[in-house]
Formats: sequence, structure tokens, C-alpha cells
Amino acid sequence: MNKRNSSAISLGLAFTALSISLACYTSSVRADEGMFPFNTPPKEQLAQKYHFDLNQEWLDKAMHAAVRFNNGGSGGFISPDGLVITNHHIADATLSELSTPQNDLIARGFLARTRSEELKAPNLELNCLQSIEDVTSQVQAGITSNMDPQKAADIRRGNISEIEKKATQKTGLRCDVVTLYQGSRYHLYSYKKYTDVRLVWAPEEGVAFFGGDADNFEYPRTCLDAAIFRVYENGKPVQPQSYFPMSFEGVKEGELVFVVGHPGTTNRLETYAQVEHTRNFTLPYRLAKARAMENAYHQFAERSTENARRINNDIRSVANSRKAYTGMYEGLCQEAIMKRKADQENKLREGASSQNPWKAVESAINNDKVEENYYLFERCDAYPSPLFHIARHIVRLAQAKDNSKYELPEYRANKLDSLKADIFSPAPIYADVEKARLGASLSFLGERCGPDRADAHSVLHGLSPQDRAQQLVEGTRLFDVDERRRLASLSLEDLKKSDDAMIQLALEVDPIAREARSVYEDKVRSPLIQSYSQIAQERFRQEGMQVPPDATFTLRLSYGVVKSYEDNGQKVPYMTTLGDFYGRAQQHQNAAPYQLPKSWELSATRVQSDIPMVFISTADTIGGNSGSPVLNTRGEMVGLNFDRNQFGMVRNYVYDETKARHISVATPGLLEALDIVYNAQELLAELKAASASSTKP
Amino acid sequence: MNKRNSSAISLGLAFTALSISLACYTSSVRADEGMFPFNTPPKEQLAQKYHFDLNQEWLDKAMHAAVRFNNGGSGGFISPDGLVITNHHIADATLSELSTPQNDLIARGFLARTRSEELKAPNLELNCLQSIEDVTSQVQAGITSNMDPQKAADIRRGNISEIEKKATQKTGLRCDVVTLYQGSRYHLYSYKKYTDVRLVWAPEEGVAFFGGDADNFEYPRTCLDAAIFRVYENGKPVQPQSYFPMSFEGVKEGELVFVVGHPGTTNRLETYAQVEHTRNFTLPYRLAKARAMENAYHQFAERSTENARRINNDIRSVANSRKAYTGMYEGLCQEAIMKRKADQENKLREGASSQNPWKAVESAINNDKVEENYYLFERCDAYPSPLFHIARHIVRLAQAKDNSKYELPEYRANKLDSLKADIFSPAPIYADVEKARLGASLSFLGERCGPDRADAHSVLHGLSPQDRAQQLVEGTRLFDVDERRRLASLSLEDLKKSDDAMIQLALEVDPIAREARSVYEDKVRSPLIQSYSQIAQERFRQEGMQVPPDATFTLRLSYGVVKSYEDNGQKVPYMTTLGDFYGRAQQHQNAAPYQLPKSWELSATRVQSDIPMVFISTADTIGGNSGSPVLNTRGEMVGLNFDRNQFGMVRNYVYDETKARHISVATPGLLEALDIVYNAQELLAELKAASASSTKP
Repeated sequence: MNKRNSSAISLGLAFTALSISLACYTSSVRADEGMFPFNTPPKEQLAQKYHFDLNQEWLDKAMHAAVRFNNGGSGGFISPDGLVITNHHIADATLSELSTPQNDLIARGFLARTRSEELKAPNLELNCLQSIEDVTSQVQAGITSNMDPQKAADIRRGNISEIEKKATQKTGLRCDVVTLYQGSRYHLYSYKKYTDVRLVWAPEEGVAFFGGDADNFEYPRTCLDAAIFRVYENGKPVQPQSYFPMSFEGVKEGELVFVVGHPGTTNRLETYAQVEHTRNFTLPYRLAKARAMENAYHQFAERSTENARRINNDIRSVANSRKAYTGMYEGLCQEAIMKRKADQENKLREGASSQNPWKAVESAINNDKVEENYYLFERCDAYPSPLFHIARHIVRLAQAKDNSKYELPEYRANKLDSLKADIFSPAPIYADVEKARLGASLSFLGERCGPDRADAHSVLHGLSPQDRAQQLVEGTRLFDVDERRRLASLSLEDLKKSDDAMIQLALEVDPIAREARSVYEDKVRSPLIQSYSQIAQERFRQEGMQVPPDATFTLRLSYGVVKSYEDNGQKVPYMTTLGDFYGRAQQHQNAAPYQLPKSWELSATRVQSDIPMVFISTADTIGGNSGSPVLNTRGEMVGLNFDRNQFGMVRNYVYDETKARHISVATPGLLEALDIVYNAQELLAELKAASASSTKP
Repeated sequence: MNKRNSSAISLGLAFTALSISLACYTSSVRADEGMFPFNTPPKEQLAQKYHFDLNQEWLDKAMHAAVRFNNGGSGGFISPDGLVITNHHIADATLSELSTPQNDLIARGFLARTRSEELKAPNLELNCLQSIEDVTSQVQAGITSNMDPQKAADIRRGNISEIEKKATQKTGLRCDVVTLYQGSRYHLYSYKKYTDVRLVWAPEEGVAFFGGDADNFEYPRTCLDAAIFRVYENGKPVQPQSYFPMSFEGVKEGELVFVVGHPGTTNRLETYAQVEHTRNFTLPYRLAKARAMENAYHQFAERSTENARRINNDIRSVANSRKAYTGMYEGLCQEAIMKRKADQENKLREGASSQNPWKAVESAINNDKVEENYYLFERCDAYPSPLFHIARHIVRLAQAKDNSKYELPEYRANKLDSLKADIFSPAPIYADVEKARLGASLSFLGERCGPDRADAHSVLHGLSPQDRAQQLVEGTRLFDVDERRRLASLSLEDLKKSDDAMIQLALEVDPIAREARSVYEDKVRSPLIQSYSQIAQERFRQEGMQVPPDATFTLRLSYGVVKSYEDNGQKVPYMTTLGDFYGRAQQHQNAAPYQLPKSWELSATRVQSDIPMVFISTADTIGGNSGSPVLNTRGEMVGLNFDRNQFGMVRNYVYDETKARHISVATPGLLEALDIVYNAQELLAELKAASASSTKP
């Protein structure tokens, strides 16, 4: 244990089920575990394990070419004229917003042959990381070791707000203080922000999401989960500081690759008790919610093809969550995995001077009802409608103007631009979709509140969930962006006089929601932050800082090798080809969700069938990595990460590389499709030129 | 109040939303409420309200022509040679069992042109009621008024077992003691039992379930939810004591009609507290379970068309339950409905000498965890696989042989034949379906057990739900009927030595399940029976016996009128035509679930479009009435009940005829389809002859 350089076993040796236990955090990083912040890159590991020199130039170039999609994904610049690639499933909300009943971009795909044909996304913000600065001491300033957690949290919040405000004033950048190591470290991330993002190319959903929910989180896989945008600034294509030249060659088995992206959340440093709580309460709650919504969306979609078009994106999103939660839940039900977690923790606790932080975590998480109320009322599980979100923003902005005691971190000055982009987004909101959505979520609220229905009643007004949903949607004018602007300009007092049903709901539930949030902050979140900070310090004392922090939707570097695996005694190949794609469609009689789009049917004889379409590697990824460029050692983009296989779901809690793999679109298949299937010659020429000029010696 | 003959207001007058409160049980039956046992028919009501003489001959003929489908539906003889009609959705399990990958009877439908082509259902039992006898005093013999509920229940169970056994010995019939008025009355129902039931005709699911889940429980509706069997005895078609001649004319608006069938369960006599508990706990539990299973079934179906064929029937069944629970939940969330229930109860309690029974109900239902454990472990929500059911039957039969202290009512002598038909049914069981089903249900078990996972662990064996499901399904040989016979012949001791994984599971969970059952019986069911018996007696004291008992899946007569209604200011017509059916397909671009079967496409120009296809009436029905013949005053079959509209869902708790309607296939549309679409001339000739010979004066 605590050996730093004992990773030789992970290369070349056949892994058994037992070897997974070597990848635990109490030892230094072995195998290919780790999502590394760009200011603490895994230089030593790469040098020792792969004899690769991860130099600063390579890192800077990757950092400046990577972008974060504010709707939850990753991407990267791929040309000097601002082309950006990401996953189709990150672009899909935009595609849906740009669609009309007459022109369904999700179904048909899109190609802009000239810059004037590019379509501006109504609601996208891209962030490109410029710098990272350790601000731990500023954030902790004024906090003493035995301070009441509530008071410490207040001071911390105040410090963070101040740091962000000053940094933004100074640089003009978007500046976010990021909490690392469960509150043991705080880093200031400064981003260049882009909001003029235009759609250049998207394939049909039929190929992007080939195999649908059935294939999601599965491998072998054949699909083309990609889309291309162009970023503008001041009306002109942006010239990024760097970009990823696309590789026309692709990868070989055993090759070292890197994933550069924004993993959302991992929970690997959480205590055993908290992981158990996640299994026993949080995941079952989330599964119940996901199923309730998915079910309602499906029923809405069944009623007509236009309904299906309107709700398609919500269905995909909730099905994806449900499948991910299922995989996590399955993993955490396994005694073998829970035992490993327990063993890791026991070792750490044996060396610790006090058991109090672990006990404090246990008592903080033992607040199911507090957690649930927070999810339902403050996190909006009871009313996840964009109409309600807009109403709440309008109400809380008016409150913040009215009285600083109402201030909430998400309404701080540095967040207002992004917030207003949300509120005034011209993306269409469909009344019938919102009725279906609210009908389902209000029913879920009632079902969860059970006998303790006082709060649910104040939302339902004594009506059935569906009747209340109808009343709310028919009683609001928030569909109209001008009306939103008018309401957002009112004072809190004037807002209270509005007869808009959604504004009235937001006002009515605000005290319940704030109470739910404040109790959750006090009883759960603040003590957890305090305790995890102490546990992290203990871990540093025992292990140093070799273990990267849990993912926080900030830029990270992962590495791994392109590698097949064994399942049920069968070798699962490291890649699939365009020929495999056609084969699977044939095998399913070309029936949905395995139906070829027309464009692919027509190109069947011209597409070169042995070109790689999808490949896998051992690199450590998680949700949020969707759309991450996958690079070879030369920094060329060889793939576009879009998924993990089912064995990778438990990676939220424990890294495994026995069978767990992340899955990427292979660039050769993408380029062949642009050429032969989409005849996107202009786009292809731009990518070729970018690649040629970059790889010049 | 307590007026028996004040029902004139319900005819001819426009009903308002308020008038629903007149249909409450504290007054005598008004409107068209009531599912009447055949030994207490609504003669007076019909004479007074409709001037119709409900004579004994009419009643006897209807009783002997009606049949109960043991899988949860109703039906009726329609020819002197044993033809029986029911709903397609009651026949669908049989259709699924008779299907193969090469010949999917659900998708394609079926027609036997000769008797030799008829297909024997592997797993159907039909019951035809012969007599009803009041055995209340025998059941209550030995029970004193202040006896411990547990002891009273034991005595009652013993008496019932004895009565059933003796009656079966004497008559050779299937004899069931039925609990009425929440235990205030017990009647002995004796049935002729038929097990040789052969499929004659079924339409394609595309027309039987046209509109799918989207149209289920909705109106206006166009579909043909019907199927026809022939009953055999000793290898020959049965000659029923009577049958329903089919009407070729159909119904007119305002016409009096009767529904003869087996309504499953209503809850109209339950206390306010229990209905509230149903809303707060039971329905949310059932919704969560239904969604979990529906979700898993959908994912299984998505993977291939053969998967979809195998699981289609389960999907339809669970979607139907989920939609019904949703309707009930929506209804009970309405303060207006709950207030009505409270008002009714308050009136009854004001006149009562003691409040104790109501208090006892409240304390009995306040046992959520007991109720949930009973559902999960004893009612098999944790393992709803037919493989487990077979394993449990085998284990419990061996226990019953071994020691009478293990006796459970469902393993009594009079039940053994039906039980063995279940265990040794040759209906196919698909390993992949069972893995999907058990994977989902075991996950639901774990999710529900939450932190209190001791029992879940003993089922899961420390594996993930999906791994455990795989282990169980791959470790059992119960797919093989011969192996089931072998295991069923073993003693309990020998059974314990079996290495069959499903038998082992049944043995392992038996103590948990019996404990869950026994605690539930003691704490919930027995006190409820006791209390409801007291409440029922109080009600009799105040109101007499004019109010029919809650439904119990026994033969009942309902009546009502064919009647349109108003919704959202629009008149909803009392019937739809075959032309409307084609119109709806066209309106949905003939896309699923509104796609015409080929046979209907090809017949489009020849079908007479103004013939009625579906109609509605105010008669009082509930689940279990599916497949009930709908009769005119002459006893001719004018329709086949198959559904309620959404406003009828709350009828489980409160009868309403403002907008609530039951929905029936109209016989003229059915006969036109047999003639023109299916060219079923032999079948049509038999029905015509039956109709002609019966309606002879």
C-alpha cells in the first residue's frame, strides 16, 4: 500500500475479477484510473507506465482547444475558424429548439453548406478554460477549526462570492470557484465564454442514436453520436487559441489515448456510509422519479407523431438517466463491491486520529425526508417545467433586488448574464408537453409526500395533478418572451399582484422551497463539507495528493489504452466498423431503433465497410465527458467519447478496467460519413486543411 | 335519507357536477348505481325507474349463460354448441401461449373454419354459476361478539374450509364461500367448471387494441376488443343450459341495457380513513411497481421484434394497471371527492351507537410496512415470475402433505385441481423474459426495502438484481413440465435436497413470506374484517339491505341507459361507427398504434361505414367486467363490455354517471367484421342460427 510506482501489472496482463481491488484509492493510482485537473497532470504515471512525456505545451494546447457545453457536455475546437465538435446527444436540445413541425432536425439531420446557412442555437453557452488558480486560503479565510458548520459555510459562501466577483471584474472572464476534495481545496477556474454558437452539421437521430435506449450504455455499438457547430464572436467566426486536428488514421489496439473533457460527478471519495445511503435512498428515489417521468413522456408521445417529435428529447434524456441509475444501483447491490469500499475505508480510518468526521457524515446523511424535500421543492422535481424555472428566476431576481437577505449564490452578479440567457431564451415551450410533464411530476410529488401532504396540498390546491397542471399551464403567459421581460422588470410587490398562475405558484412555494433548502444546507450539506474536508486532510496526511479529486464538471485529463475485453467467455472487439453498422440494421430487419436513415441506405454500396466507426478504451470517464475529444499522443483527435458500457456505470463509485470501457466515435468513420453519406465537401475540406496545417512539422 | 324509491330524478334530467353527490350510499340506490348479486336483483328499482319486469326466468337464463374466465374476466355462451365470447384482452394470454415465433396469433389473429382447427387453450378455466346459498350462520358458527379477532378469523377459516369441502363432495361442483358486505354476509357460490376451452376466432391486436395504451380507458373509441372460444366437455362441444342470442340490430340512445359479468373489486363501502390510506400509500406503491415493471418490459421489447412478441402481453397488462391506478389516484387527490366521502361517512357515524369500528379500521390500516412486506414477499411482487409461482406451489403442496399446520386456504382440497392446472400448464415460459422480469422485480424489492435490507439480502444473495435473476433462471429446470411433475411428487424432505435454484428460493423465502402474511392477517386483514362487519351491521340498521355489496369477482347484474355526455362543452356521442374507425386511422397517417390491420385495409370499400362499432352506457361496471355480455330487455346480446372511460376510474370508490361510462363493442359492428373483414361464414351461420332459434316466440 502507498506505493506510488507499482503500476506495471496493469499492462499486458490478463485481468481477473479479483484484480479490480488493486484499483482502490488507498494505494496510489494504478491501472488507468483518474480524471486529472490540468494543474496537477499525471506526468509521472505516464512517464513510468507509458514512457510518455506529458509536456506543458501539449497540456496548454489541449486546455485551450477544449470547450464545455453549459447544458452538460464537452467538446473541442477542430478548426482555426471556430468549428466545434460535440456529441449529437449534447446538441439534441438545440436541434429540438431549432426544429419545427415542418422541419424536424432531429429526424432529418442538418448540413449548412455555407456560413450563411448556419443556424444560431437559441440557448447555448460554451466555456473555454483560460487559467486555474488555487484560492483555498482566501476561501477559508476567517474560518476556525471548531467553528459551527453553519457559520463556516456562511463565511465560505461570502468569500467565494467576493473572489468570483473580483476576478470577473478584473478579467472580464466567467470566474467560478470550484470545490475540490470535498471542500479541502478551492480552485478558481476562469473561462472565456461564447454564446453565439451556430449549427453546422448534425446527422439524423437514426444514426446518431442507432439502437436507441436498447443500445444505450451497451457495447459493441455502431452509431455516429456527433454534431458540429461553429462559434462566433462579434459576428465573426472565432479564432481559437488552439484546436484539435482531426486524425484520418484512427487508433490501433493497445494504443495510448487521452480524453480531454468535463466529467460531471464522481463519488469515489465518499464514505462507505454515504455510498450505502445512495444505494438505499437516493438511487431508489431517482429511479422512481425517472420512471414516473419516462412513463408519462411515452404516453404523451404515443398519441401522435407530432407529440413524439415534441417530447423526443425529454424521453431520451430521462431514459439515459434511468439507465445510468439502474447500472449504479446494480453495482452497489453487489456485496463484493460494497465490501471493497468498506475495506478501503477501514484502512484509512485505522490510520486516522479521530473517527468523528466519519460519524458526522453518517449523522448528516441520515435525513431522508430533508433530502427528499430538497429535491422535490427546491430542486424542482415536483415542477420541472421550464415555465416554472422561468417563473422562479423572475421571482428570485425580484427578491434579490428587493432585499439582500434573499440573496442566493446562483443569483450573484457573475451569474446574471447566463441566467438571463435562460429566462429570455426563444426556445419553444409547448403547452401540451408542459401539461404532461407537470401532470406527472405533481403526481410524483403527491405520491412521495404520502400521508404528510400539507406541502403537496399547497402545490396541488386540492386538485388532481392533471387538473392542476392544466390550470397552471393555461393560466400563464410565460410562453411569451416579451411578457417574461415585462415581469422580470417588476418589483417584488408588483410581481405579487400578477395573476399569472406560474408566477403565483413560484411565489407560493418559495417559502417551502427555501425552507427545504436551508434545512438541507444546515443538516446535510454543510456538515458534509466540513466532515469531508477533515477526511480529505487525513487522506492527504496518509497518501499525499496523488489521488485526483472527484469530478466537478471542470476540465480533466484521463488516459488509457484502446483495449478489447472478455465477457461471458467471449472476446469483445476493441472497435466496430461501418460494415458492422449495416450488418446490425440487417439483423434487425431494419426496424426501429435499428433502422437505417435514408441517406445511409442510399450510400450502402459506396461506404467503405472496413473503416472503424466506434472504439473503446480503458480511460476513466463519467457523465459530462460526453463529447470529449479523444487524442493520440501527438494531440490529434482520434475519437469523440460518447458513452460507457454497462460495466462502467459503477465507476461513479469505484474505478474498474476489467470490463468497463468508455466508448467513442472513431474519426475515420465520421470523416467517411461526411464524405460519402452527407457529401459535406465544404466541411471536409475545412477539416482536412486544419489537419494539414497543424501536423506540419 | 333512507328513502327507497326516490330515483325518478335520474332519468331525463340534465346532470350537473353537483348531482353526483346524490349517488352516495347513505341514501338508497338512485341513478344507475349498483352491481347486484343474482339472489338480490334490483327488481323494484327497475320496475319503478324503467317499468321493466325483471322476472326469474330472465335472471336464470342470464345466470346460466354467463361465464367467468379464471384469468380475471367475464364472458358468455352465445350458441347452443358452446361458443363463448369474451374480450380479446381476456383472451390475449391464451393467444400469446398459443403463438410461436413463426405464427404470432396476437399480431395476425386467428380463425378456425372447422372444429378440428380450433386450438386448445393451455391454461384456461371457465366457471358457470349454478346456485347461490346464504351460509352466513354456518361461517359464523362458534364466533362470539367479543372474541379476539385472530381467534374469530381462525374459526371462520375453518368453517369456510369445511363448508366448501362438503359442498364439493356433495355436488361435484367448484364451491367457493364468498365474503360479502366486508364480512357481514357469506354466500356459497357453486360453479360448473370447464377446462377444455378452444380458440375459434380472434382479430388482430391492431384492431382489438386499436389506439393502444394511448386510447385505453378513453372515449370516443373505435376497436374490436373481442374473441370467441368453444367450450368442450368429454371431447364434445358443451350444450350450455342457456346462451345469449346475438342481436343484429344493436342499441338506440336512451335504451335500457344490462351488464352480466364478474366485477372484480370495488371499495365503495370502505371508510374515509381507508380510502385516504389507499391514496397515500397503496396506490403510490402500486404505481411505483407498475412503472418499474412496465419500464423493464419496454426495454426488453426494444431489443428485437421477437422480444416484443414475447413480452407484448405483459406490457399491455401492466400498462393497463398503471393507467387504472393513475385514474384512481387522480380522482382521490380531488378534495371535492374526498369531501363527499367524508360527508357520507359522517352521516353514518352520527347515527351509530359506537365509533369503535371506525377507530379500529384506522389503526389496522396504519401498518404501511406490514402491508408492503405482505405485497413484496407473500403476494410475490418481489418475484412475480411464473417460475417462482410454480416453485412456491410445489413447495407449499409438499408442506401441506407433510404437516397440516402448514395448511393455507388456497391449498385446500377444493382448489387442488385448478392449482395443478396452473402448475402443469404447458404454456411456454421464456428464459429471457423471466430474467428481465425478475431483474426488474428484484431491483424493486431492494429499492423498497431501503436501509432495512435484511430480507432483501436473503432474496438477492448479495448479488445485483440482474445477476441474481440470471442465476435463478439459469439454475432452474422448471421450464420442463415433466420436471415439475417429478418435483411435485417429492416429500418436503426430498424437495429440500433439490439443487433447483427456484425451488431453493421458494424454500428460503417461505418463512419470510409466511411471517409477512401472518402479521398482515393479524394486524390488518382480520381486524378489518371484524370492523367492517360491525360497520356493515350498523349500515343495515340504518339503511336496510338495499345497497348491493362491494364487488367480489362473482356474478353481478348492472343496468343503465345508452347515453351520450358532455365534456369541455362538447357533446360526446353515445356510439362510434366502423366509418369512424377508418377515419381515425387516416387521421393518424395509419401509424401505430392507429394502424389498420391488412385485413381491414383490404376491406375498406366493402365495410358498411355507418354500422355501430362501439357504444357507451351508464351501467355500473369495474375491472373484471371485461368481456361481460351487454343485454337488451329481451335478453339479447347487444354488446360486449370492454372498458370504462377515464372518468369511470374513480368508480372504485364513488359511483358517478355525469361523465363516467362503460364502453362496449356493439354486436352489429362485430358481425359485420366477421362477415366482410374475416369472411367467417361458418361462425356467422352458427350465430345466426342461434339467434333465430332463440328469438322464436
